Order: sequence, then structure tokens, then C-alpha cells
Amino acid sequence: MQIIEKISNMQSYVKKNRLDDKSIGFVPTMGYFHEGHLSLMRIARQKCDILIVSIFVNPTQFGPNDDFDKYPRDFDRDKKLCERENVDAIFIPSAEEMYPKGFIAYVDMDGDMTEVLCGKYRSRHFRGVMTVVSKLFNIVQPDIAVFGRKDGQQLALIRRMVADLNFPIEIIGGRTIRENDGLAMSSRNKYLNSEQRKSASALYKSLLLAKTMIENGETDSFEIIAKMKDFISNSGDFEIQYIDIVDADTLKPVNTVQNKVMIALAVFLGETRLIDNIIV
Amino acid sequence: MQIIEKISNMQSYVKKNRLDDKSIGFVPTMGYFHEGHLSLMRIARQKCDILIVSIFVNPTQFGPNDDFDKYPRDFDRDKKLCERENVDAIFIPSAEEMYPKGFIAYVDMDGDMTEVLCGKYRSRHFRGVMTVVSKLFNIVQPDIAVFGRKDGQQLALIRRMVADLNFPIEIIGGRTIRENDGLAMSSRNKYLNSEQRKSASALYKSLLLAKTMIENGETDSFEIIAKMKDFISNSGDFEIQYIDIVDADTLKPVNTVQNKVMIALAVFLGETRLIDNIIV
Repeated sequence: MQIIEKISNMQSYVKKNRLDDKSIGFVPTMGYFHEGHLSLMRIARQKCDILIVSIFVNPTQFGPNDDFDKYPRDFDRDKKLCERENVDAIFIPSAEEMYPKGFIAYVDMDGDMTEVLCGKYRSRHFRGVMTVVSKLFNIVQPDIAVFGRKDGQQLALIRRMVADLNFPIEIIGGRTIRENDGLAMSSRNKYLNSEQRKSASALYKSLLLAKTMIENGETDSFEIIAKMKDFISNSGDFEIQYIDIVDADTLKPVNTVQNKVMIALAVFLGETRLIDNIIV
Repeated sequence: MQIIEKISNMQSYVKKNRLDDKSIGFVPTMGYFHEGHLSLMRIARQKCDILIVSIFVNPTQFGPNDDFDKYPRDFDRDKKLCERENVDAIFIPSAEEMYPKGFIAYVDMDGDMTEVLCGKYRSRHFRGVMTVVSKLFNIVQPDIAVFGRKDGQQLALIRRMVADLNFPIEIIGGRTIRENDGLAMSSRNKYLNSEQRKSASALYKSLLLAKTMIENGETDSFEIIAKMKDFISNSGDFEIQYIDIVDADTLKPVNTVQNKVMIALAVFLGETRLIDNIIV
């Protein structure tokens, strides 16, 4: 397994494999792996000759009050886990390598899709995500790239960006991997104390509650969201940022549930922001 | 020579040639060719196995008062000229093909480089240019792409975008091709009546005047620009939009000429907007 820090070295590595007619699978990450990340690697591993994983805690997608500085990092552990998943190369550039002095180009998305859900509260977040993903796509030139469905809005926006800007890349969404009590795996779960960790299982339970309501014929989004809010508020010391029901593809808010919807939420437990979603 | 209208067909064409280890040269244009365009094709032709030319009058880079509707088009003539230059494929997509319903992704540049020169007067122009160039790069996947130096700010911004977003593409600037009296060739020159056409030669002469002043030791940008304005105003019925002296790479305005500068201008002759520049 190769560890590559320089963009130019990554480009040479990719070029060589392209000339050998190897297909390239790519899993972009911020590191500090859990089973969710590993499941994405396994999807890509099965579909491609060469598996490249990037580890880059991208400064441009964190806001001034976000947890960039304390975001968990453990490269030695990540490296061992990559070896176990038969990763061919880890790309781990520095921030200076990715954003040299004078950097000014950005990929941004207009309109509603970025202004709902997380976008309402993290205004520059998706601009940072789209820009770094575009850069990584151009550097790694993968045939397929795998993203987790836990970041549901991110996945929908990346699919849209890939279509709009004509990246010749197939995007695959890997299912959300959960702890035994249903909590979606996240590198940020390590911030939770034991009491918070216990109550955090209410998030997925509230999503299942919504799912059951819809399956039983409830179509009124306000009704469903109200029940979810009640349930979460009674389950621990949560501060709810949003609970929304949106069209699964366009992310437009839905008042009456008819087609495929994404039910998505973001809450704070103390300082820790957690997100989750299901598609019904 | 192939004529390709669909993005998916272009992608197949590129894929096939990539598998055959062919290098790809690319000249993006808005059509209505003059010697300037043909000179760019000749540069790319010499350096690559496959030469692809795109013809697309890109709506997103025209402002509401610009000349999108009346921009000159003549595909039959363009096709013949491409055949003569041994072009392998013309890519000529429709606006609906390039910007389908729901399109929301854009490539934009922050800061000074887009807010000087033409950017001051055509606010969304470069966002449109950067977006369509990114799309074309992803569709055509060229090894090299050739742009004219007449659009000096555009070329500097594309170089910056390619570096920032890590496109694996070499950008080549082709020298400005001029009429016998010095007027830079442009598809828009056809808008000029015979009197306007005659006085238009003053633009290049004013640039040469500035060059001579600098070569003779003048370093004060204000002094140089004042002389140019005098010269142009005395040469015809011009409305000067801007004359600026900027750093040739960063496009930052320069008060005292020391390093390599771009002297750039935009004027109106009647309804017709003309631009030109030289690097000294």
C-alpha cells in the first residue's frame, strides 16, 4: 500500500494505472475510520482494480464555529484499517498542498438544494465540499466514487454536481452503518459522554417512528415532524436544529408525503452536532 | 471528420481514443472562425494525435444586455475550415444539452482577478466561462487545450482555475492574430461599419504607444493610460470602457511598471464592444 502526500505523485500514480488499463475506485474521507468508512471501501474494492482512499480534513467546509481543530485524527490506526481492506493507495495531502497561496477557484451550487437542511445552518459548508470533491476527482480520476448515505444532502448534491459538470464518474451511495442501538456511525460520536451516547439512539428511533407513520398512511409532514420532535425532546437533552421531510432527489420540502422522501435531522447533544436520515 | 452533438457520444468518442492511447488536443470556441481560431487549431494539431474543436455560443457568459442573440454563427463555413485544418471531431452541443432543466452547479473565482478589467463590467461573465470550460474539459478530457491571448483575462483565469481545481490539462495561450492594420481579429469585428472599422486600428496603435513609452523608461501607469486615452479619443468615435495596466499573472493593478504587465483595454465603437491587450 502506498502513502501519497503530494498531488503530483498522486497524478503520476493514477497516470501509470490508467495506462495499464486499470479501473480506479475512490473513497474520499476525513479519516478516523469507523465501520461506515470501511463498508464504502469494500463496495469500491469489489468494483475496481485499484482502490484509492483519501484522508483530508478539509478546512474550507468547516465554519468558524465548527470543530475543525478538534476533529478526531488517528492516521496510524487508519493506515492499518486501510491495509486490512486491501486499499492500494492512501492520498493524504496537507492543507497547503490542496489550497496554495492565491487559491481562488470554487465550485458552488445555486438555489434551493443548498439552502435547505444543513445548508440553512452551514452556509459555506457545501461550497467547501463541492470544491474539494472536484479537486479530488481531478487528481484521482476515478471510474467510481463511493459516498455514505448518512450525509444525505451531500450525496444528493454530489450526484447533481457530477451530472451538471459532466464528471465521467459513477457515484455510488453506501448504506448508513449503525451501532447496535441504531445510532448512525460517525467520527463525531466519540465526542459524546456516556449519558449523551445513550440518549443518542433516540434519533434513529424517531426516524423509524416517522417511517411507521408513513407506512400506516400518514401523509402530513407537519404531523410527522411534530411527533418526531416530541419523541426526541422526551428522550434526552437535545437541541433540535432541524427535522425536515424533503423530496429524496431534489431536496425540495414536501408538505404531503407522496413520492420518495428523505426524512432528515440535525441535533446538538451538548456541543456535538449529529445528523441522520432515512429514505422512505 | 466527425460532427458530434450529444455529450454521451462525445464521451464515447473520447473513451475510445483514450483506450487507443491517443493524446487529445482541444480548442473550445464560439464558432464563426477567423484566422485567430485557425491558428489555435494549428497549435493543437501539431501537439496531439486527436484534435477536437467545440463550437458553443455559451448563454451563461452573456449578460442581459450582451449580444447573445445576434452573436454571428455560420456552421457550414466553420465546418469547411475545420476540415481544412484536419480537425478530427467538432463538438457542437445545444444549450439544452449543456444546461438541462435543474442545472445548478457553477465554477466561480473569488476576489480580485475577476473584479478587474472586463470583470468589473460583466459581473457574471467569468462564472459562465469557468463553468462551461470545466464542463467541456470533463467531457473532452484533453491533454492540452489552446486559448487565444486576445482574451487575456480569460486566459489568466483559466490557468488559475486549472491549477486550483487540479485539472490534468496543459493550457497553451496562442498569440493574437491581427489584421494588416493591427486590429485584433474577432468575430465581433463584422459588426463594424467601414468608418468604425477604419478607426478601430487605433486600439492596437495605442497599445504599441504604451509599449514604446515603457521601453523608453516611463513607469507611471497613470501617465501611460492618459496618453492612450488621448490617442484613442482623437482617433474616432470611441467610448472607452477601461484601459488598465495590471500584473500579467495576478491581474492586480500596477501603479509603477516594473515586472511583466498586461496593458488591456475595452472600448465601444457604436454598439460593438472590442477588447485588446499586450504583455510588456
